[in-house]
Amino acid sequence: MADFTPQNPHFERAVRESFARQAFMTTLGARLVRVQPGDVRIAMPHAAAFTQQNGFLHAGAVSTIADSACGYAAYSLCPPGYDVLAVEFKINLLSPASGPWLLACGQVLRPGRTLTTCFCDVWGIDTETDEVAAGARRVATMLSTIITQPAAGS
Amino acid sequence: MADFTPQNPHFERAVRESFARQAFMTTLGARLVRVQPGDVRIAMPHAAAFTQQNGFLHAGAVSTIADSACGYAAYSLCPPGYDVLAVEFKINLLSPASGPWLLACGQVLRPGRTLTTCFCDVWGIDTETDEVAAGARRVATMLSTIITQPAAGS
Amino acid sequence: MADFTPQNPHFERAVRESFARQAFMTTLGARLVRVQPGDVRIAMPHAAAFTQQNGFLHAGAVSTIADSACGYAAYSLCPPGYDVLAVEFKINLLSPASGPWLLACGQVLRPGRTLTTCFCDVWGIDTETDEVAAGARRVATMLSTIITQPAAGS
Amino acid sequence: MADFTPQNPHFERAVRESFARQAFMTTLGARLVRVQPGDVRIAMPHAAAFTQQNGFLHAGAVSTIADSACGYAAYSLCPPGYDVLAVEFKINLLSPASGPWLLACGQVLRPGRTLTTCFCDVWGIDTETDEVAAGARRVATMLSTIITQPAAGS
Repeated sequence: MADFTPQNPHFERAVRESFARQAFMTTLGARLVRVQPGDVRIAMPHAAAFTQQNGFLHAGAVSTIADSACGYAAYSLCPPGYDVLAVEFKINLLSPASGPWLLACGQVLRPGRTLTTCFCDVWGIDTETDEVAAGARRVATMLSTIITQPAAGS
Repeated sequence: MADFTPQNPHFERAVRESFARQAFMTTLGARLVRVQPGDVRIAMPHAAAFTQQNGFLHAGAVSTIADSACGYAAYSLCPPGYDVLAVEFKINLLSPASGPWLLACGQVLRPGRTLTTCFCDVWGIDTETDEVAAGARRVATMLSTIITQPAAGS
Repeated sequence: MADFTPQNPHFERAVRESFARQAFMTTLGARLVRVQPGDVRIAMPHAAAFTQQNGFLHAGAVSTIADSACGYAAYSLCPPGYDVLAVEFKINLLSPASGPWLLACGQVLRPGRTLTTCFCDVWGIDTETDEVAAGARRVATMLSTIITQPAAGS
Repeated sequence: MADFTPQNPHFERAVRESFARQAFMTTLGARLVRVQPGDVRIAMPHAAAFTQQNGFLHAGAVSTIADSACGYAAYSLCPPGYDVLAVEFKINLLSPASGPWLLACGQVLRPGRTLTTCFCDVWGIDTETDEVAAGARRVATMLSTIITQPAAGS
């Protein structure tokens, strides 16, 4: 991947503070396991409360952490005083979201002043970690468009 | 919309039973407000537990009910003994998911033996209902591909 | 569909002039058969030069006229001095693109100052027309995001 | 990328023969510059006949070669007697399709008996080649779902 230079020297704090305000992340038990410029990873343990009819995590739960991973990957490259919003995303569900944990790896593909394109692979993993082990199963892949706007109240 | 003839005379019961097994729907407080052939609607009240950093419902929550509405719209046209699985979807987030309730209106666009294409508009609404009032705000629109497979254990 | 009020009183001329500059439209034999605010239709005859391996029109040809129909639907609502650019699109190919003509019906779903969301159904039709006859076969459906920018040279 | 084992020992001949029957590839001047298992690349020179209103290659032309590159990447892994068809794709247009040539790099992400997921990056390049030089500009990225079916006449 390309190396990105953050415009906000406090990008990690900005990402962590915003993440902490996403109540849905807390509800899902999701954790921010990596915050680097243009590269944000979120891990989430399996939990029965978020399953579909066959006991796997619902595609919507997979999408939720992938969407946040993309959004925060984009946000990590924002200037101070700006916020991000997902314009749209597309996700392919590649295999059942089983396994003790999921790891959503959000990456900026092309940053832009207004629009940033991100992608995210989601993997089934065994423990809480920010690394994808060799042989891990890819659960989903997302392609996402994110808009950068002056933050409300800024 | 086209009128669809269900292949399972008990399609409504099949949809309601599967929905009841989606623990994530219960967790979100989502309700099945319409089950017709190829036309399934899910309503969900606003709740702080599923919000993003600005207090709106997270795009992932919007996607979750839209994905289920599409899946059950497809499932309503399945023969007995078959199950559905989302292959992929794409969602455009059109306006903030505010408002007391969201209504996800899943529709079959083109049914198929193997693959069914669905779309779903999600609306901000004032009360629990299956109708979109004139002047309602469209929150999101989804296009989705669903695969039909013999049910596990069938 | 919603009724849209164009910001450019000469929107039709603007659309027709831009369309005439899209050399690819001429190459494909594509014709602008309807230009209304937020509602643009493009018809294209079947031609062997644009087929895939089985003699149907290539999905790329279908995508090309759908992309232009969406783009011009958005452009019809632009202020003077602005141009549009597709940010991304997603297309589902629903049935083989056979038939003497294709008709791509681009519609604005939600206009915006910066981003406009459009959709487009593509139909197999028998003659050059801007109307979809009852019983026509839907060949594809597209969902598209378009950005509005000051025109180069404006 | 993963290494894939082709099921058809004559996969390269199969891909080349099918490509030769895609009249649209000939029309566009597109060339098959790499055929490996799950990894197919198509190069296309800039030509005025396929441009949009500003003189860049039309997004539809970019989509066409990306769609074919994905389809043939999937096809290279098919058993003999089967054919592939695009179910849907999504493309993000990242920068203007300028430059003397475009190179569409189709890759299988997850092969399957019925459905195969592919992605494709399209790059602006200087000459006809199957290699992406360091510093090349990414023009677009595609995520695509492809279905494998018994070939007509097989």
